[in-house]
Amino acid sequence: MNNAFDPSKLDGLPPATKGRIKRRSRALGPAYRLFYQQPVEVCRAQGVLLYDSDGNEYLDAYNNVVSVGHCHPKIIAAVHQQMQTLCTHTRYLQDGILDYAEDLLSTFGGKLSASGHAMFTCTGSEANDLALRIAMHHTGKRGIIITHEAYHGNSHLTASISPSLGDNSPLGTWVRQIPAPDAYRLPKEGLGQWMAGQVQKQIQDLERHGDGLAAFIVDSAFSSDGVYTHPTDLLAPVAEVVHAAGGLFIADEVQSGFGRLGDSLWGYQRHGVAPDIVTMGKPMGNGFPVAGIAILPEVVESFGRAMRYFNTFGGNSVAMAAAQATLNVIRDEGLLENAQSVGRFLKDGLLELAKSHASIGDVRGSGLYLGVEMVQDRSSKQSSPFAATYLVNALRERRVLISASGFDGNSLKIRPPLVFAKAHAERFLNELDGALNDLNKQQ
Amino acid sequence: MNNAFDPSKLDGLPPATKGRIKRRSRALGPAYRLFYQQPVEVCRAQGVLLYDSDGNEYLDAYNNVVSVGHCHPKIIAAVHQQMQTLCTHTRYLQDGILDYAEDLLSTFGGKLSASGHAMFTCTGSEANDLALRIAMHHTGKRGIIITHEAYHGNSHLTASISPSLGDNSPLGTWVRQIPAPDAYRLPKEGLGQWMAGQVQKQIQDLERHGDGLAAFIVDSAFSSDGVYTHPTDLLAPVAEVVHAAGGLFIADEVQSGFGRLGDSLWGYQRHGVAPDIVTMGKPMGNGFPVAGIAILPEVVESFGRAMRYFNTFGGNSVAMAAAQATLNVIRDEGLLENAQSVGRFLKDGLLELAKSHASIGDVRGSGLYLGVEMVQDRSSKQSSPFAATYLVNALRERRVLISASGFDGNSLKIRPPLVFAKAHAERFLNELDGALNDLNKQQ
Repeated sequence: MNNAFDPSKLDGLPPATKGRIKRRSRALGPAYRLFYQQPVEVCRAQGVLLYDSDGNEYLDAYNNVVSVGHCHPKIIAAVHQQMQTLCTHTRYLQDGILDYAEDLLSTFGGKLSASGHAMFTCTGSEANDLALRIAMHHTGKRGIIITHEAYHGNSHLTASISPSLGDNSPLGTWVRQIPAPDAYRLPKEGLGQWMAGQVQKQIQDLERHGDGLAAFIVDSAFSSDGVYTHPTDLLAPVAEVVHAAGGLFIADEVQSGFGRLGDSLWGYQRHGVAPDIVTMGKPMGNGFPVAGIAILPEVVESFGRAMRYFNTFGGNSVAMAAAQATLNVIRDEGLLENAQSVGRFLKDGLLELAKSHASIGDVRGSGLYLGVEMVQDRSSKQSSPFAATYLVNALRERRVLISASGFDGNSLKIRPPLVFAKAHAERFLNELDGALNDLNKQQ
Repeated sequence: MNNAFDPSKLDGLPPATKGRIKRRSRALGPAYRLFYQQPVEVCRAQGVLLYDSDGNEYLDAYNNVVSVGHCHPKIIAAVHQQMQTLCTHTRYLQDGILDYAEDLLSTFGGKLSASGHAMFTCTGSEANDLALRIAMHHTGKRGIIITHEAYHGNSHLTASISPSLGDNSPLGTWVRQIPAPDAYRLPKEGLGQWMAGQVQKQIQDLERHGDGLAAFIVDSAFSSDGVYTHPTDLLAPVAEVVHAAGGLFIADEVQSGFGRLGDSLWGYQRHGVAPDIVTMGKPMGNGFPVAGIAILPEVVESFGRAMRYFNTFGGNSVAMAAAQATLNVIRDEGLLENAQSVGRFLKDGLLELAKSHASIGDVRGSGLYLGVEMVQDRSSKQSSPFAATYLVNALRERRVLISASGFDGNSLKIRPPLVFAKAHAERFLNELDGALNDLNKQQ
């Protein structure tokens, strides 16, 4: 996280902000980071808008958790109704979890719909941790292949496959990285075959070290690598070499799932692959802590019989009500279509801005997940983390919230709730244009 | 879990139950277990009562998650109110998390209250996983000492220190077990010194293997070991040898915390120890997925600076509202006192039953966490898992829900919500008496 608040820089902040930061550092300790050079305080929200306690309004162009919008009445009502009725675990029979699991499984198509199982956790980290445990148990191997700046979670196991946590957070000795499919710099033609070749090389290295391949795990939006959404023919050749080596293909849909990418409900579907395990989280309950995996029966069979799995809150009555309501709203309000059309509008606007701002090297993305790579100049494509950091903070001053991503944090990460309307996109583009103009004056 | 439903035994179950089990096995797969030979279906709940869809009422004497009672209006209202206002993460400044963290920290006393930090996760597994990660980072060692049948979570790391998951679930090579403080069989006098000696022996073994000691982690109710709540002078001598070896003392309060044991809000306080880390979960939000740790600043300092920690849902606005409301209700309704007085009444009743039922070997427990060890005969103290399994299922037929625990599942685990009233305890004792009479006829 390149645009984190530096706690040594309290000077110049409003007294109330300073007070909250001091209380926070006392109560929560040194592991907690805040966004922005001037942290944002929030006290209420609605749709795509956040408000601080002075009544200032912020346009939320970053929150992928409250995906159907902050404080959506349907989710609130479903949780309220269920909390008044029953909230208990999966060791009693309940209909809600069965209804939701069946509905969810029907969205994947292929073998996952025909015979797959759903298992529920509370967080995406837990979902990935469980997926890896099952993959290692099923294959009898432990090697995991990831992309260069991957993030897959905060548990001990998932942190061990999350290089984006930084150099201090050690990767497992059984982890191998492949470069992200940087279509801005690499030739788009044959990129999938190139990627498959990279994976093949790492499989051989894992086998040479006696680890073997348990799984290749990938976020098909390549979120922390810098948001690479095109071309969409990358993962099929990769899945082929992974399966040929006896490994599993795990689609980490924690970021790219539930309609974020517009084209389809699941990011991996854009690549035409059939994963062995799909992991889900963040937007699944629109902020209610619910996550899970979908898995092929033959993959979970031996783990399920030998190990069992119980997650106290995972799949509880209220979590399932929140998840069902969220899935219903995505369908009922046509949010996939909205992500597609407003996303297209937003991307066109960014491409338009690129015409007048040479610091924009590349505009990419799909649906409401967009990346804008900032460069020092277009011919060398040398990255400009300075520009990205400047813009993220300048937009915050203009009360528009986004973040940055990629190896050196030089790509703007634009990822609003799926209910983002054309008017919000216009407001966003307008403020970004202003911030880019200010940036030009800085340089 | 010794009293799990055997999915091959569908015959004789009501058609609706059979249908749900088949749907469940199709949708959720083989890793999910159901309680009881005849699984219970639930569709609504209130206080300490659960209801199935035929309107049958069950007395819940087992649920330690909805600790302040099923569907408590204050928790429902707090979650509803917060969901209508704001639900977002910890990278913006919010007051709710600060208010709750400060309130929570004030309950521990000692150094944790004076200078400790709170960190929030969604599940007890995540809390223990984080505590272990920090302990390993802080000490630079990886050895962990646990009790023989410990359960500390379902993540890869915490499952590696959870022998109660069964023989198929491998422990880490850096894990060492000590026997549970079985005061029914071992001399009570000097039991703490004996335990400290066991820990010392394992520390030496860890050092011999080059692992060293990172932490000793313990549930002070010894829940999955069989519920050992007395004597209460066990853990102070243990903490001494742990600290002398440079290790951390982690109190896993996921089961024993938030007033369950009656004497004090936290189980470790009964032993007069000062843990370096306290982990919390299950009852923290009365069913809302919220968990966390409290930690000394010197222990988290280097981890916090080097590694940072972000949990998307952990500490979110609604989780904090649920947790605050739960803590308020525990205080406002005097639930610690209720656990103490009703727990005493229940324990006296169990001791009374022991007079007329020789199959009861031992009655133990504190507050509303009671264990009843079933034996084949009192002189040999040979355990009777048959009796425990019989009683758990016989009580289920009488619509009273409990479970069993311990090495071979021969101890009844009685653990009702903290709002259990004297009348509920009477009903429970009455049904247990009946089930014990039926057991006598079986043997």
